[in-house]
Amino acid sequence: MVTTLDPAVADRLKRTDDGLVAAIVQDATTHAVLMLAWMNDEALQRTLSTGRGTYWSRSRGELWVKGETSGHVQHVREVRLDCDGDALLLVVDQTGPACHTGATTCFDADRLL
Amino acid sequence: MVTTLDPAVADRLKRTDDGLVAAIVQDATTHAVLMLAWMNDEALQRTLSTGRGTYWSRSRGELWVKGETSGHVQHVREVRLDCDGDALLLVVDQTGPACHTGATTCFDADRLL
Repeated sequence: MVTTLDPAVADRLKRTDDGLVAAIVQDATTHAVLMLAWMNDEALQRTLSTGRGTYWSRSRGELWVKGETSGHVQHVREVRLDCDGDALLLVVDQTGPACHTGATTCFDADRLL
Repeated sequence: MVTTLDPAVADRLKRTDDGLVAAIVQDATTHAVLMLAWMNDEALQRTLSTGRGTYWSRSRGELWVKGETSGHVQHVREVRLDCDGDALLLVVDQTGPACHTGATTCFDADRLL
C-alpha cells in the first residue's frame, strides 16, 4: 500500500506544530457529527487508499484504524478539505456507535447550551 | 456581561497548549458541517451568554464574533462538549454563507475522495 500522501494534496494541508490536521467525522445517513479526530499525512493517505477511517491517536502516539478492536468501523464515502487547509470533513457509514463510551456520537453526553 | 466561564464547565475542557478547544459548527436546518473554528474560555463564555457564535482567531490573535463585519452571523441553538472534553459542537442558524469565500460551507471547494 502506498503510504505517502500525493504531494498535490500534501501541499494544501496546513498542519499543527505536531503535523496534524483536524478531521470532523459525519454520518452519511443521519448527518450527525460523530466525532473529532486527528490525522497526520499517513493517516489521510491510508484513509484515502483503504476507505476506512484511519487517524492519529495523540494520546497513544500511533496510527489508529477506527473500529479495529471494537468492530465499529467507518466506511468513508467522502473526504473534503476546508478553505484554509487545516480541517477535513469525512462523511462515513458508521458501523455501531462511534464513541468509545458506547454512545452514538461523542457529543451525546454533555450539552452546555 | 460575564466573561468568565463557569468553573464547572471550565474544569471539563481539555485545551491545546494555546488554551483552545476545537469548535465544529453545524447548520441546524440542513445539518451541513459549516466550518471548524477555535475557542478559548472567553469565546465559549461569550457564545453561551450571547447566543452568537464567537471564536478565537488564531491568525489575528483576537476574539471574533462571526458575521460582525460580513453580517453572516450565527445564532447558536446548541453547544455540546465531546466525551474527552477537547471538542465542541455548535448547532446554529446561519445567516448567509458560512465561509469567507462566499461558499455555503468551508468544505465545499475541495473534495479529496
